[in-house]
Amino acid sequence: MDTKLLSSIHDPADLRRLPRAQLKGLADELRECVLQNVSRTGGHLSSNLGTVELTIALHYVFNTPRDRLVWDVGHQTYPHKILTGRRESMPTLRQLGGISGFPRRDESEYDTFGTAHSSTSISAALGMAVAARQKGEDRDAVAVIGDGAMTAGMAFEALNNAGVERDARLLVVLNDNDMSISPPVGALNRYLAQLMSGNFYAAAKQVGKTVLGPVPPLFELAKRIEQGAKGMVVPATLFEKFGFNYIGPIDGHDLDSLIPTLENIRELMAKKAGPQFLHVVTRKGQGYKLAEADPVAYHGPGKFDPAVGIVPPATPPKLTFTQVFGQWLCDMAEHDQRLVGITPAMREGSGMVEFHRRFPDRYYDVGIAEQHAVTFAAGLATEGLKPVVAIYSTFLQRAYDQLIHDVAIQNLPVVFALDRAGLVGADGATHAGNYDIAYLRCVPNVSIACPADEREMRQLLSTAFAQDHPVAVRYPRGAGVGAAPLAGLDALGYGKAEIRREGQRVAILAFGTLLYPTLQAAERMDATVVNMRWAKPLDADTLLQVASRHDALVTVEEGSVMGGAGSAVAEALAAANVVKPLLHLGLRDEFIEHGDPVRLLGLQGLDAAGIEASVRRRFGDLLASAPPSLKVVA
Amino acid sequence: MDTKLLSSIHDPADLRRLPRAQLKGLADELRECVLQNVSRTGGHLSSNLGTVELTIALHYVFNTPRDRLVWDVGHQTYPHKILTGRRESMPTLRQLGGISGFPRRDESEYDTFGTAHSSTSISAALGMAVAARQKGEDRDAVAVIGDGAMTAGMAFEALNNAGVERDARLLVVLNDNDMSISPPVGALNRYLAQLMSGNFYAAAKQVGKTVLGPVPPLFELAKRIEQGAKGMVVPATLFEKFGFNYIGPIDGHDLDSLIPTLENIRELMAKKAGPQFLHVVTRKGQGYKLAEADPVAYHGPGKFDPAVGIVPPATPPKLTFTQVFGQWLCDMAEHDQRLVGITPAMREGSGMVEFHRRFPDRYYDVGIAEQHAVTFAAGLATEGLKPVVAIYSTFLQRAYDQLIHDVAIQNLPVVFALDRAGLVGADGATHAGNYDIAYLRCVPNVSIACPADEREMRQLLSTAFAQDHPVAVRYPRGAGVGAAPLAGLDALGYGKAEIRREGQRVAILAFGTLLYPTLQAAERMDATVVNMRWAKPLDADTLLQVASRHDALVTVEEGSVMGGAGSAVAEALAAANVVKPLLHLGLRDEFIEHGDPVRLLGLQGLDAAGIEASVRRRFGDLLASAPPSLKVVA
Repeated sequence: MDTKLLSSIHDPADLRRLPRAQLKGLADELRECVLQNVSRTGGHLSSNLGTVELTIALHYVFNTPRDRLVWDVGHQTYPHKILTGRRESMPTLRQLGGISGFPRRDESEYDTFGTAHSSTSISAALGMAVAARQKGEDRDAVAVIGDGAMTAGMAFEALNNAGVERDARLLVVLNDNDMSISPPVGALNRYLAQLMSGNFYAAAKQVGKTVLGPVPPLFELAKRIEQGAKGMVVPATLFEKFGFNYIGPIDGHDLDSLIPTLENIRELMAKKAGPQFLHVVTRKGQGYKLAEADPVAYHGPGKFDPAVGIVPPATPPKLTFTQVFGQWLCDMAEHDQRLVGITPAMREGSGMVEFHRRFPDRYYDVGIAEQHAVTFAAGLATEGLKPVVAIYSTFLQRAYDQLIHDVAIQNLPVVFALDRAGLVGADGATHAGNYDIAYLRCVPNVSIACPADEREMRQLLSTAFAQDHPVAVRYPRGAGVGAAPLAGLDALGYGKAEIRREGQRVAILAFGTLLYPTLQAAERMDATVVNMRWAKPLDADTLLQVASRHDALVTVEEGSVMGGAGSAVAEALAAANVVKPLLHLGLRDEFIEHGDPVRLLGLQGLDAAGIEASVRRRFGDLLASAPPSLKVVA
Repeated sequence: MDTKLLSSIHDPADLRRLPRAQLKGLADELRECVLQNVSRTGGHLSSNLGTVELTIALHYVFNTPRDRLVWDVGHQTYPHKILTGRRESMPTLRQLGGISGFPRRDESEYDTFGTAHSSTSISAALGMAVAARQKGEDRDAVAVIGDGAMTAGMAFEALNNAGVERDARLLVVLNDNDMSISPPVGALNRYLAQLMSGNFYAAAKQVGKTVLGPVPPLFELAKRIEQGAKGMVVPATLFEKFGFNYIGPIDGHDLDSLIPTLENIRELMAKKAGPQFLHVVTRKGQGYKLAEADPVAYHGPGKFDPAVGIVPPATPPKLTFTQVFGQWLCDMAEHDQRLVGITPAMREGSGMVEFHRRFPDRYYDVGIAEQHAVTFAAGLATEGLKPVVAIYSTFLQRAYDQLIHDVAIQNLPVVFALDRAGLVGADGATHAGNYDIAYLRCVPNVSIACPADEREMRQLLSTAFAQDHPVAVRYPRGAGVGAAPLAGLDALGYGKAEIRREGQRVAILAFGTLLYPTLQAAERMDATVVNMRWAKPLDADTLLQVASRHDALVTVEEGSVMGGAGSAVAEALAAANVVKPLLHLGLRDEFIEHGDPVRLLGLQGLDAAGIEASVRRRFGDLLASAPPSLKVVA
């Protein structure tokens, strides 16, 4: 590919030295660079193709890194990374030791705020703008937020606060591409569509085309457009009611609109003319036909040939836990009319496409709104329905108070299907599902099931659904060992563990999918293995019985050791006044970076070899009689 | 007081049998009943005096409990409780075994949803409305929410979702009294003030007065008013942009406005005319001159003589932890220009009134917006400022994801001043600060200090402030033992425990204020006592040294045993391969109801007598030589 212009850009200062006329060519090269790189590494594509021009325009107009750019969610920052000195690092994207798929403060001074979960950018940028004011520093802060992210409550909390900070130099850019990961939902989206539809946007574009001179007084123009258009669609936008100066919508792929508009806004900010709001319309996948046609498929593809596009694998891959959940949800919905399914904007990721198709009246995508999702579920449950909230472990953190206050205290029968529990791989620390056992275990009335494989997961979902209180079922990203789920809806015993292997002296208690590497390790040490299945309630009967027959206990879990399931075992032993050597294996008290999940698990010492090594290191004397072997069985 | 009418009301069906003309008299009796009761028990006053007419009107027009009423926050439900069969129970309000100060599903079928934390009502009521639709049941759902609660993000998430559920029978009543607990802040509040100010509201009242006939077609009228007023203030309200049919503002103390308006809305709901929004203006403290004049003072008073009002105590009471924090905040702000103070609408409760007065440019009340508060603090911290977020333990649950994702992963130096940690007394389970040690401990980079008394609290706040990473300092509601804080800003050692008493065989490790009853208990058993001071990082050196010199260990904390500080001790012992009898004392795995906190602590076995009894029960054989005594030393 031609990278003549792009190769000359080592940082945004180089960009700002380019004549305006060359920016279009730069955009073409940048788009191609994104496409080529993502097709080789996998990663987010559609969103990055959509922000090429916006990224160029922002760095061209604002004096980065002195001015602060905060990218909401941050999965659209590949063009930003390429323009800020990380072009050469792109082949390492999202890989162990490579650059992150999200902005990271420790990666570049241009990454002013780490993002990944949505809707944090306005709060962070407002903090920066207020700090600049307090310190008397002459700089702007800009938050770039998508229309999907705008539906989360905290974006509104931030708008509400920012609207009264009149002299903070803040710009919010709404990157309106009419698509979060799932199809857009909610009143705000409908409202934005109205803003863009027909008259207003068309008129704006038209006037823009005819009036633009070489140095267009765009802001004046925008005002005139606005006045001219008053009453055509909506006379005062939602965002003006929050105290922002609203400008837009403008075409986010048209540098001749973007740059003069941003220049005018920048002047307003220098005059401390109050918080500014620019509504930009972009298209996900822009410039790559296949992604334009199917931006969902190209939202986060694996590797592919850009000339061919994504090709379905010849042999179907192993069933993922997500798919097992999706199938169970449909089957249970068929069986029980009370079931309703709720997702906070994660229909695809949570495996609910089929459920949505088959049970549209019992499917609720509430938008990126985890808090509302959980309390809405509580409301449904008070009326005798049985809500299943499908939510990633990391995103349930957003609804922690609602889980305690609305679900647990009232002891309502809500099932939480916690996908992406444990290590998540390429998404890294921000998406880690490491904390759920700890943060759920302390909440009275809540149970936590940890299925070891696909078959057990389906059974434990049925167990959870049969309870009359809140139950979370946690399962990891991707596939397990491949234990085929049974067709029926039979449940496993509530709160019951099973002894999987009878061995000598040392008993290993496994929680969740690490049961399988544990079994491998135990085989070589002749240790007993218990499939605990439930982090809460803990099967204390089995635990104490096993403890009485062994000299030492080991716990294994794919979750934080601090406060985790192993900690529950320690508490249960203390409560029963059982004193016994105990080793906790799990995730260390550190944030775990992006990388291949299998590799990461190994680095945490949680593959079969690592488990064996840890147990031998601690309890080698007890195991002396067992066959010594440190070889890894695949 | 005259309770002729009120005595005849045993449930809302009785109310609905009253002629309209008698409702005004009933309101007077109800208001007097609230005032008399609260003055004897303490509790929320201003908000309840403000909702007397609204409560009567809602139960009069809607067919409760078949129609569902959800009261946001729920501290304004005393009139509702009195009208729904709990008049006789009012003297037991907020007392152990008595009725709750909030709605409770297990207290009455009229309490459809338990509330206490703000801004949950729309989500819950939408869930109920959607469930009714799904089950084909003919009922309405009504959420009553204050203007303060409306600033929290989850209210907007719910509006955004409800706006597209066109055929769900939902009414949101905005009870606009221009006052959350702290003075109102934010753009939304300013917007509501604009809606009410001058022209529009006045015109509406005027037209209302002249046109109202005996059976006024209020909805038509409202439409005419709206049309007539178009352009006077704002032509389409914020709430209409979310898809609601907006009606108002109307006078919330005028039954002749409320009842016909609600009747009209009810007809619209029966026709499934989309989600309805009624804007009602009320006055906190209405009808009691002293509370009208100072609604903040009468927000949640203790006992008082209604004829005299609140009288300041003759001798100043002991300094509360909240006050110690407020004083430290001012002193540290004086000393360090980088300090900024942030509160999510809890200026009074968090002891920040003086800080606000003295450092207005470094004080941020962001509204009821915990999520934004924490990420805003993160943004400030990235620019080198040192934010102190003052937040109740129970409310930090609302910002858990922001704490992990924005503060901890980026390891930003934000201090969390966690007030109301542990038992909270009269507010009950919803406000319990029992979980923070467990939910914070699993998060990498976060430290947790547990001061034992006022002096130590000030020192540990200074220690926290000196760190370059996030630190939470947790302290209980009310006063401690009364250890006078030192004047200076000296810090205590980071992560360091202190041995407070050298004893025999059993060592008790106390976290936080329970150090003092622990010392009393230990005195009688000749046990060693360690003031641990930090739940994280745990002082492992001291722990292991103490463990090596004793036969058994006991941990004591005012927090959840599950995953708490005692659990951290168990983990640390396991990590060091130390096998030692261990007893965990703390809060049980159950929700703890409202009541006197001293009494509640005793019921949890966490007073001196309880601690002694538990230790003797478990380790009596070790203590045989110590002087036996079960008497409680005051």
